[in-house]
Amino acid sequence: MVVEFSPDGHTLASASLDGTVQLWRSSGNFIDTLEGHADKIWDVSFSPKQKILASVSSDGTVQLWQRNVIGLDTAQKQTLESLIKLS
Amino acid sequence: MVVEFSPDGHTLASASLDGTVQLWRSSGNFIDTLEGHADKIWDVSFSPKQKILASVSSDGTVQLWQRNVIGLDTAQKQTLESLIKLS
Amino acid sequence: MVVEFSPDGHTLASASLDGTVQLWRSSGNFIDTLEGHADKIWDVSFSPKQKILASVSSDGTVQLWQRNVIGLDTAQKQTLESLIKLS
Amino acid sequence: MVVEFSPDGHTLASASLDGTVQLWRSSGNFIDTLEGHADKIWDVSFSPKQKILASVSSDGTVQLWQRNVIGLDTAQKQTLESLIKLS
Repeated sequence: MVVEFSPDGHTLASASLDGTVQLWRSSGNFIDTLEGHADKIWDVSFSPKQKILASVSSDGTVQLWQRNVIGLDTAQKQTLESLIKLS
Repeated sequence: MVVEFSPDGHTLASASLDGTVQLWRSSGNFIDTLEGHADKIWDVSFSPKQKILASVSSDGTVQLWQRNVIGLDTAQKQTLESLIKLS
Repeated sequence: MVVEFSPDGHTLASASLDGTVQLWRSSGNFIDTLEGHADKIWDVSFSPKQKILASVSSDGTVQLWQRNVIGLDTAQKQTLESLIKLS
Repeated sequence: MVVEFSPDGHTLASASLDGTVQLWRSSGNFIDTLEGHADKIWDVSFSPKQKILASVSSDGTVQLWQRNVIGLDTAQKQTLESLIKLS
């Protein structure tokens, strides 16, 4: 379970044991749930400039989420599953 | 158990297994204990600009803590419990 | 399992349980796999300015990876194994 | 086990399961071992500006380490043990 503010401070990402990422405004308002991982998420990282969020999960994938005006556009996520090798 | 300095370097937050966050000045002086989580805290994150601290706990909640002049005003914390879904 | 963007946002490092670090462009394109650790990696950190990546592993070593134009030059990695004492 | 570069990129701190923090230059040269914790260290954080390193350990303490010209002066560390309450 991790929390991380975006570099501009407007968005908070919290990663859950259920494999989803929740996005919140700094006011506490809920923005979106990012669904795509099949297992618990270990870490997230915001890109310093390009408004991208990366998440890594026990499902063996890293996913990139592209932010749009009101949050992150899940349609633009990129699954890197086939490239990650986990023991 | 995590430690994180605020972006201005004046405040250190340490999260405990007892579900509290301790705030310290960089001089080592104790500022405050943030009580509200019912279980151990996994991570904390300071907002880069708005003086907000986020914490996530095994109790299934993310909490936001608003900093005031002498620390964080616990009366302003926002419990996001109902919005977080954990397996 | 951790993910971290480089300070310039162009590179994403993801650390795996198999002891390798994968490097990705923010577009999702794969750059390189950094092989050298003999056990799972616990954490990575990018140097703010000098384009160095540090990784720490259960194998008891910290390794530094020097970035070159197209990624990280594994030939320049420095094994600090003999200096790290782990219980 | 965690690694973190200082904000100026000149120093790398790695925390060990034996309760010590190792400091390295970004060139890979060893600087110092910070001894003081009685159990494994979970996290470290560099202060953005004041050249202070904080560490938190399973021994129930947070320690602050003041950097001097050639490293961190362990004589200036401040043990906050009595103020941290752990379950």
